[in-house]
Amino acid sequence: MIQAGVIGATGYAGSELVRLLLQHPNVELKTVTSQRYIGKYFCDVYENYRQMSPLICEEEDIEKMAEQCDVVFLALPHGVAAKKVTKEILQKTVIIDFGADFRLQNVQDYEKWYGLEHEGKDLLKEAVYGLCEINREKIKTARLIANPGCYTTCSILSLTPLLAEGLAENNSLIIDAKSGVSGAGRGTVTESLYCEANESIKAYKVAAHRHTPEIEEQLSYAAKEKITLSFTPHLTPMNRGILATCYATAKAGVTEKNVRDAYEKWFGEEYFIRMTKKGVFPETRWVKGSNFLDIGWMVDQRTNRIIVIGAIDNLVKGAAGQAVQNMNIVFGLAENTGLCQPPMFPA
Amino acid sequence: MIQAGVIGATGYAGSELVRLLLQHPNVELKTVTSQRYIGKYFCDVYENYRQMSPLICEEEDIEKMAEQCDVVFLALPHGVAAKKVTKEILQKTVIIDFGADFRLQNVQDYEKWYGLEHEGKDLLKEAVYGLCEINREKIKTARLIANPGCYTTCSILSLTPLLAEGLAENNSLIIDAKSGVSGAGRGTVTESLYCEANESIKAYKVAAHRHTPEIEEQLSYAAKEKITLSFTPHLTPMNRGILATCYATAKAGVTEKNVRDAYEKWFGEEYFIRMTKKGVFPETRWVKGSNFLDIGWMVDQRTNRIIVIGAIDNLVKGAAGQAVQNMNIVFGLAENTGLCQPPMFPA
Amino acid sequence: MIQAGVIGATGYAGSELVRLLLQHPNVELKTVTSQRYIGKYFCDVYENYRQMSPLICEEEDIEKMAEQCDVVFLALPHGVAAKKVTKEILQKTVIIDFGADFRLQNVQDYEKWYGLEHEGKDLLKEAVYGLCEINREKIKTARLIANPGCYTTCSILSLTPLLAEGLAENNSLIIDAKSGVSGAGRGTVTESLYCEANESIKAYKVAAHRHTPEIEEQLSYAAKEKITLSFTPHLTPMNRGILATCYATAKAGVTEKNVRDAYEKWFGEEYFIRMTKKGVFPETRWVKGSNFLDIGWMVDQRTNRIIVIGAIDNLVKGAAGQAVQNMNIVFGLAENTGLCQPPMFPA
Amino acid sequence: MIQAGVIGATGYAGSELVRLLLQHPNVELKTVTSQRYIGKYFCDVYENYRQMSPLICEEEDIEKMAEQCDVVFLALPHGVAAKKVTKEILQKTVIIDFGADFRLQNVQDYEKWYGLEHEGKDLLKEAVYGLCEINREKIKTARLIANPGCYTTCSILSLTPLLAEGLAENNSLIIDAKSGVSGAGRGTVTESLYCEANESIKAYKVAAHRHTPEIEEQLSYAAKEKITLSFTPHLTPMNRGILATCYATAKAGVTEKNVRDAYEKWFGEEYFIRMTKKGVFPETRWVKGSNFLDIGWMVDQRTNRIIVIGAIDNLVKGAAGQAVQNMNIVFGLAENTGLCQPPMFPA
Repeated sequence: MIQAGVIGATGYAGSELVRLLLQHPNVELKTVTSQRYIGKYFCDVYENYRQMSPLICEEEDIEKMAEQCDVVFLALPHGVAAKKVTKEILQKTVIIDFGADFRLQNVQDYEKWYGLEHEGKDLLKEAVYGLCEINREKIKTARLIANPGCYTTCSILSLTPLLAEGLAENNSLIIDAKSGVSGAGRGTVTESLYCEANESIKAYKVAAHRHTPEIEEQLSYAAKEKITLSFTPHLTPMNRGILATCYATAKAGVTEKNVRDAYEKWFGEEYFIRMTKKGVFPETRWVKGSNFLDIGWMVDQRTNRIIVIGAIDNLVKGAAGQAVQNMNIVFGLAENTGLCQPPMFPA
Repeated sequence: MIQAGVIGATGYAGSELVRLLLQHPNVELKTVTSQRYIGKYFCDVYENYRQMSPLICEEEDIEKMAEQCDVVFLALPHGVAAKKVTKEILQKTVIIDFGADFRLQNVQDYEKWYGLEHEGKDLLKEAVYGLCEINREKIKTARLIANPGCYTTCSILSLTPLLAEGLAENNSLIIDAKSGVSGAGRGTVTESLYCEANESIKAYKVAAHRHTPEIEEQLSYAAKEKITLSFTPHLTPMNRGILATCYATAKAGVTEKNVRDAYEKWFGEEYFIRMTKKGVFPETRWVKGSNFLDIGWMVDQRTNRIIVIGAIDNLVKGAAGQAVQNMNIVFGLAENTGLCQPPMFPA
Repeated sequence: MIQAGVIGATGYAGSELVRLLLQHPNVELKTVTSQRYIGKYFCDVYENYRQMSPLICEEEDIEKMAEQCDVVFLALPHGVAAKKVTKEILQKTVIIDFGADFRLQNVQDYEKWYGLEHEGKDLLKEAVYGLCEINREKIKTARLIANPGCYTTCSILSLTPLLAEGLAENNSLIIDAKSGVSGAGRGTVTESLYCEANESIKAYKVAAHRHTPEIEEQLSYAAKEKITLSFTPHLTPMNRGILATCYATAKAGVTEKNVRDAYEKWFGEEYFIRMTKKGVFPETRWVKGSNFLDIGWMVDQRTNRIIVIGAIDNLVKGAAGQAVQNMNIVFGLAENTGLCQPPMFPA
Repeated sequence: MIQAGVIGATGYAGSELVRLLLQHPNVELKTVTSQRYIGKYFCDVYENYRQMSPLICEEEDIEKMAEQCDVVFLALPHGVAAKKVTKEILQKTVIIDFGADFRLQNVQDYEKWYGLEHEGKDLLKEAVYGLCEINREKIKTARLIANPGCYTTCSILSLTPLLAEGLAENNSLIIDAKSGVSGAGRGTVTESLYCEANESIKAYKVAAHRHTPEIEEQLSYAAKEKITLSFTPHLTPMNRGILATCYATAKAGVTEKNVRDAYEKWFGEEYFIRMTKKGVFPETRWVKGSNFLDIGWMVDQRTNRIIVIGAIDNLVKGAAGQAVQNMNIVFGLAENTGLCQPPMFPA
């Protein structure tokens, strides 16, 4: 059994991770920590776990967890992981970090977009960007995995085949993304109140969201050229889900078949990526509660644009599910172990 | 492997049953039928199953299914099952019926509340009311199981210990129940439209809902006396969940401890019934997606009333989950086989 | 023009009051105050008022406002108004208080249920309970009006005719009430977050909610006898609305006609009270945005109970609308001045 | 008093129009018609109007209504108005049509996108596109007004200043629009059911929505050049609201100030268009229930794109409100007569 620990377990992503780990046949969840609820039963914080787990929220002690656990998941605010993770810790355990600290190889981008000095630069080289379908080989031997963000997972996977296969103009990309409210976390801020988020939709951090450089960096690898793109996140009145509507100008002569071939080539064998039939487009409800990414597209001859739409559950493929997928890769398990639950509908 | 078939698989309860059966380690789901979608892939009707199931919606043929399946689940409108099920079919397969036809032993009540002549009276004696925690022994050998309704499961289980242990005045019962919209099914009626059900709550079928005689019949067994009660269902703007707020006048001298003892005696060992701590009350979000019933109560000395609150997911413990639980009992499996997924939150 | 001021304008009830006052033909809204947003434009806090009001959130100064305003509305936490309001202030202006401090004539009840010493006892005699349809005459000359709570307005009006006309057993009353989330206010607490309140229903403060003694006190006046009752509030996933489902045991021989006659006698002439037809029951969506209370009932011969259902918009008839109605009465205006907007649907 | 009639009053747009007309100081609403509810009280179909209107749903008779009414609003399926409206009718009354039949001057576009032969071609020349802020002068003398669609109103107004002032590359436009569910109407189709639309977001009719040629035709007038653009509508889980996120490539050297100047020039004096401050973006909640269009924008130097965001209430500025605004113009009233209600929040 893999011994696992979760630091920051009482946020939404942390709690979702607990849900997946409790169902995982090869994992024993040993420790959960929390800042706000130290000493409380985890199932008194998240009552869905009533009678399902005797775990108590502990104070964080990463050194001790590194000793006791084969893998430690970090679900912490940006800037904190960079301080806590050390070479010594990585010798003892595998770290899968939900935060942004080790996602950007470009430190300048990190410092500019996050407004922080990076305090873990020396570990960056060791960090692997944990986008499983793209970086599977590197992940196998990784000790420090930067689990991708929710918007980024959905955006990068949706666009990679287009760019890698040279079907789109590299600098024509626009990503108009819509997220459920759980993406904002469990912090008690006015904007996250029920009456504020319900029955409304808005764009926020227009042309200024921190996931932008992460998407650009990864898509630049795919395109083998520096990519600059527009990314607009929207807050949508639903608990879970991300829908990314992506626009790209088609290169001359690109057909529907070229596009399907590209996606088939890249993702035809992937368990967690489901391509929709022609004329059918992803909806967040069809992936809710699962680790799937649904992708559909349309080549619009009228405007010469390719529109690609991706949908994930932000807390699963966009956070906890992908973290488990990363863990499965590292520990040599079948990649979908513990992740085969069908999406739940209506939910 | 248990060979299973589902008649009426494209309603919400039917689709939820498919979700649970696909995850069940001892079941092979052989056949699904539908009236509306014959010949379509099931996963084109419910796209959450994309790439998870090759099943095609077939035309219903209960005779053939009885030959091929060890168990056939019926999710049909009231009155239909009573016509379809025969002694011959029951010799070949186990029937678990989601409808009301075999729930009421009192035919007069059935004919009065449903406005139908009962066309399967001769099979009624053979039918077992599939409320697992109460009728487990009878279910073990049943061939025809009347799977309880959603409101009824929640209401009967919430009140049985009070009545069986003589803690409440038998005819003081009031059940004020709230249901999510999936309880109304997938029929395309104006009242089920998003804009009609969203952002509003209403009572409906006040003192006239068909689940009333079912609750009364079962609680009369518990009380060993004929029970008449008030039941008021409410439509609540959420996909899933039933909350039953039950009021009863306490018998003289009844204490909080008496009540807890009664619930512990009846349900202390039950996997699917979770009692809340004193001062904590059930919420539908904590059971969503699971087969749990959460129960909490309060003895109000000021008014001399006992208030019991129960919460279930109407599509799971109130329909498909309980059906699987019944199947597990019949086939000698551990009762929670395939039903141990933790509730999902936020969902 | 009536000069008006609002203390605590940036809560939901305060903001709703601003909405109504801006549309009122006889009112000039002079001052709004806020603790949290001093110096900000009101329309930067509530952007629905963009370009509709130049008001700036001021620091509270009740003395000054009493000098300048004909009426001052107070939307403050419990216990604060009792300290601020004085005889001197009441000589200069009319106070309409949204809080609980002057609602209960029984100081012991106040101190027990609110856990506070009452700091304005000497003004209690002067306070009039501002339930317009019941206390209209007293309100006309009042200087200090205790604007009723949302649950209480709906509950008291729904039950008054039954009790006043002697149709129900006085101590048989059970009120099962459901409220939208705006009833909890704009405070940033975990329970009010979107992901916590969405897609779930729960009871809270079971047999312990502070509106209980307020309902009991007022219904005791109607019944001319001390009433003790059960009140259970529920949090419902919607922005606005209260539905009160009220249960009472009918006195012997009471008929549907008796009940209708009682409601007609009490409310037949009331603009803001709309009785539904037989067999039709109120729904919160039909009153949303308006000052109406819809009432419907059912006499259930089977159980000998009368079920009365009332629906209001908690922010209008349950708060700001009733406050304006009170103001209209005090200043001799037609009671529905500025309050004739039809409910909005779907909303 | 203007005598008004509404054909097709029992759809959502029709009912919203009734709400506005009932509040309009210069209008007497004489007749409402419905196909589905002939003979029923309007307030039994939409119970929000309980006791607010004695109107009965009549069978449609446009000839008679033309005799009796100064203005007749048509809220009918596409293709029907083109058959019903005649020169004779237009001599007797003003027609304001909610449908698409008279919106496109290009008959070929109409026939291609709607798949219908146009049966009212001869009246097209007389039809005025009722986008008030743009076509005010023509509307003043119009007899046949094609009231714009909801997506189109929001999109065209959001982009007109950019194109008219030559700030954006004409063929770089992408409109990613999000609509509440009421935009789909009250038809009982599976996709509009609560459980289908709730808690999910999807794109639909990707690159194929019928509002596309309408937007293109109008924006071509603004740009004085044929515009082809991408338009992607999304179904969002909320009752009301449209948010249009519009992307355009900036022409060389265009600054934030150029953009603000353009919007100020075009809309600085408009009552119903509210521009947000720099860094603030529209949200549908802030316009809900009102006839406002909120517009905000961002000039992104990094990508050389201008992002303009517009928000309206689809049933008001996107349908019934704009229809009343058109009526006000035709009858020489102040344009905001009966339309000055502040948006309602939370709603």
